Amino acid sequence: MKSQEDVLKRVVAHAKEYGFVFPSSEVYDGLSAIYDYGQNGAELKNNIKQYWWKSMVQLNENIVGIDSAIFMHPTIWKASGHVDAFNDPLIDNKDSKKRFRADVLVEDFAEKFEDKAKKEIEKAKKRFGEAFDLEKFETTDAKVLEYRKKKADILKKLAKSLETNLADTKALIEELGISDPETGSKNWTEVRQFNLMFGTKLGSTTDSATDLYLRPETAQGIFVNYLNVQKTGRKKLPFGIAQIGKAFRNEIVARQFIFRMREFEQMEMQFFVPPGTELSHFEEWKEKRLNWHLALGLGKDNYRFHDHEKLAHYANAATDIEFKFPFGFKELEGIHSRTNFDLSAHEKYSGKKLQYFDPEQNKSYVPYVVETSIGLDRMFLALLSNCLKDEELEDGTSRVVLSLPPALAPIKVAIFPLIKKDGLPEYAEKIFNDLKYDFNVMYEDKDAIGKRYRRQDAIGTPFCVTVDHDTLSNHTVTIRDRDTMKQERVSVDSLNKIINDKVNFISLLKKL
Amino acid sequence: MKSQEDVLKRVVAHAKEYGFVFPSSEVYDGLSAIYDYGQNGAELKNNIKQYWWKSMVQLNENIVGIDSAIFMHPTIWKASGHVDAFNDPLIDNKDSKKRFRADVLVEDFAEKFEDKAKKEIEKAKKRFGEAFDLEKFETTDAKVLEYRKKKADILKKLAKSLETNLADTKALIEELGISDPETGSKNWTEVRQFNLMFGTKLGSTTDSATDLYLRPETAQGIFVNYLNVQKTGRKKLPFGIAQIGKAFRNEIVARQFIFRMREFEQMEMQFFVPPGTELSHFEEWKEKRLNWHLALGLGKDNYRFHDHEKLAHYANAATDIEFKFPFGFKELEGIHSRTNFDLSAHEKYSGKKLQYFDPEQNKSYVPYVVETSIGLDRMFLALLSNCLKDEELEDGTSRVVLSLPPALAPIKVAIFPLIKKDGLPEYAEKIFNDLKYDFNVMYEDKDAIGKRYRRQDAIGTPFCVTVDHDTLSNHTVTIRDRDTMKQERVSVDSLNKIINDKVNFISLLKKL
Repeated sequence: MKSQEDVLKRVVAHAKEYGFVFPSSEVYDGLSAIYDYGQNGAELKNNIKQYWWKSMVQLNENIVGIDSAIFMHPTIWKASGHVDAFNDPLIDNKDSKKRFRADVLVEDFAEKFEDKAKKEIEKAKKRFGEAFDLEKFETTDAKVLEYRKKKADILKKLAKSLETNLADTKALIEELGISDPETGSKNWTEVRQFNLMFGTKLGSTTDSATDLYLRPETAQGIFVNYLNVQKTGRKKLPFGIAQIGKAFRNEIVARQFIFRMREFEQMEMQFFVPPGTELSHFEEWKEKRLNWHLALGLGKDNYRFHDHEKLAHYANAATDIEFKFPFGFKELEGIHSRTNFDLSAHEKYSGKKLQYFDPEQNKSYVPYVVETSIGLDRMFLALLSNCLKDEELEDGTSRVVLSLPPALAPIKVAIFPLIKKDGLPEYAEKIFNDLKYDFNVMYEDKDAIGKRYRRQDAIGTPFCVTVDHDTLSNHTVTIRDRDTMKQERVSVDSLNKIINDKVNFISLLKKL
Repeated sequence: MKSQEDVLKRVVAHAKEYGFVFPSSEVYDGLSAIYDYGQNGAELKNNIKQYWWKSMVQLNENIVGIDSAIFMHPTIWKASGHVDAFNDPLIDNKDSKKRFRADVLVEDFAEKFEDKAKKEIEKAKKRFGEAFDLEKFETTDAKVLEYRKKKADILKKLAKSLETNLADTKALIEELGISDPETGSKNWTEVRQFNLMFGTKLGSTTDSATDLYLRPETAQGIFVNYLNVQKTGRKKLPFGIAQIGKAFRNEIVARQFIFRMREFEQMEMQFFVPPGTELSHFEEWKEKRLNWHLALGLGKDNYRFHDHEKLAHYANAATDIEFKFPFGFKELEGIHSRTNFDLSAHEKYSGKKLQYFDPEQNKSYVPYVVETSIGLDRMFLALLSNCLKDEELEDGTSRVVLSLPPALAPIKVAIFPLIKKDGLPEYAEKIFNDLKYDFNVMYEDKDAIGKRYRRQDAIGTPFCVTVDHDTLSNHTVTIRDRDTMKQERVSVDSLNKIINDKVNFISLLKKL
């Protein structure tokens, strides 16, 4: 079995080799925690967007979409709390001049005790062979218990210091003797809060330029447009506003490929509801959003809810939908009951009323909000890592297949002329030209058919169509299914329907 | 007849009133030259993107799409010439502390002579009535000729000074006696170049943070990924890479609504070709791109080519497709033969080879590039301003209609129950639920039917379907056509096909 790290490496390598994800600015040796989507990645990403947008905006009569700018008035981030509270605790090493996240330094240190515990377990496994009882060993072995207690104690102290006093975080680092991992120096500065928003300046004079932030989330673009949409769209509560767009966070430690990037994309929906009804809407959206994920067929066991025990300042209920990534269960989507925190804050900071007149209750109030927020890049990684499979075949060979849900596959069908002569390419091109209006089709005439099949498997193409000599006389082709690898002989005229039945969005949406 | 300014004002007001475009951060009194797309605008924008993407990527076997990040390695902008040459000439007024574009100050001053010429023409028109011969008057009247000569002389001097010496631009401003429009002060600083790229910092230490730019164009994201796409996609020349994405320019004078924004979106395609073949590809893309526009049916006379006489440093041929906006013919799309300038520059600055091995010529070379680059927001404005019409009807009333190409309309069909009882809403909802998988449908039960029709006309909805009492017994509805305003009685079962025949992308794409 492969280690988690190996699995992620494998995904990263496959993503690059097959045109899904490239390191950004690679010819200039890259840019940390930034990635570009290649020719297959851009299509997969677009298809995820479409699935989300259609499911939100098309299927729900009371949800509309908007597209607000990345640049927003700077006071918005004061109102939202990002200027004051969107920070990471940083510490500098005075000798190496390197900067670190203080919490990550301590977490990494604590993790070493877990590694030690694991080593003890491995040793015992080897010694006891089949007789080894992991659960019993973990709960009784003195060394394992000691290491794990040390780890837990450190993390507890860390959490308390971050909440109450950063001087205690520094003291903890010194107490543990943590040093700069590269130089070994223990000469640390104080721990300070560092704001994660990227700044820039709008306008040209030093005097008059406005300090702007690149938005760290798309949600505020929905809040500040809520009244415009409600009024011009004549919307009654409850109704929702959906948006897909870029957001930016100056992460100090960005890890795990496209899971945590400095530039990333969100798909967020804010559902505006009468006060007092928010918790039942929250429950409803939890279920709806889980169903959206399950409809893709990646396996029910790969998802779980993680309810927040500690709530953010704006929320009265919150949960994550976690997905089993190669590095374990991690947040894929958040569902938050945000109360009227944001709209009320914008009322206060802008001096404008953001109230809704409820004709049924015959009174005005600031709506409550239930939010669903999913990381588009995380969704992409969930699909890529879950669908990438090494399959052992019956004939003893193996293949790599990316079993993406057909509606999301970058290419829906590849057309191959068996050989590059005898009029087969011309016939294949004719089929390409017939199908291209309905589907993203690839034409491919290089290498042997078997090799061409394998390449399409690796990018997740649901169908391959081969034009051979029989095609010329009887207008039939073979169509090969990615998942079963079975080939069937069908008439050229039936191709559109066969492909459409499997790859269209409608059957996916009808599962919701 | 309305003045050009009035027409633009009308478009801006309509865009806001009907949920197409809102000023960004409006509750905070807006942010200059930034706009948000509302519930109908987001759909129209998405549909324009789809039309472009499908026409590029789906219809052309040798074009693929990518999605590269906004953040790129800073040396890229050194290589592309943007660090050194992407500037505006700025001048400050020492008294008012306001900053201006020096060229715009002079242009506005020159334009006053055109205004004077126009006044002479208007006076003569009134005096001579029907006998007035505009062409003759313009070419013979001494005053008109004098004013226009003055304007031309000023613009000529301006152009020369900008090219050769900014001190001459300052001298010209003083010679003409140009003052700060608001304060009247003539106390000017020198003219200096101001770079239009927005800067930000990646990372957290003052020492180690990387100075980044927000990309001022998407094209470079294609160039630096060209070799990754070519290799992983096994592409042979000629082939193209398409991309849609945000770009940012710190414009000093941003005008004309969404025509020139500080944050905007581009749809660019770079076509890589063997050296020596670029000019024939350039001609081919000129024709293809014009056809793409013409297929929308906004009228052939609204487009013209404007070939560049003065070429940018990277180009050996360039043209604009200009569109007749409310403020005259202006650039909508650029088509440029960029030679091997960009790829060669990236070779030089990165030290990496960006060559293509041509199996037919049996040699390696840096490909030449033909680019098509269209402003998505400009395309949006072209559609909105061209399709917004006040129509006088036969019965003496009038209506406002937005005659968007049906495939691009935000909402494809609106479903109305005639009244809100007798089971009509339930039947209408059933139709909504049947159609929503295929189209963006709106359900609307407020106000009289006539008023509902008018609202849909104003947002460009091609069809309105009304459920009345007859529907309950014979399962027929009326379907009203936006353009003819004719209502037809049809069976409920036939709706999907009737709507699809008119609104699907395929018939639009087949015109290409």
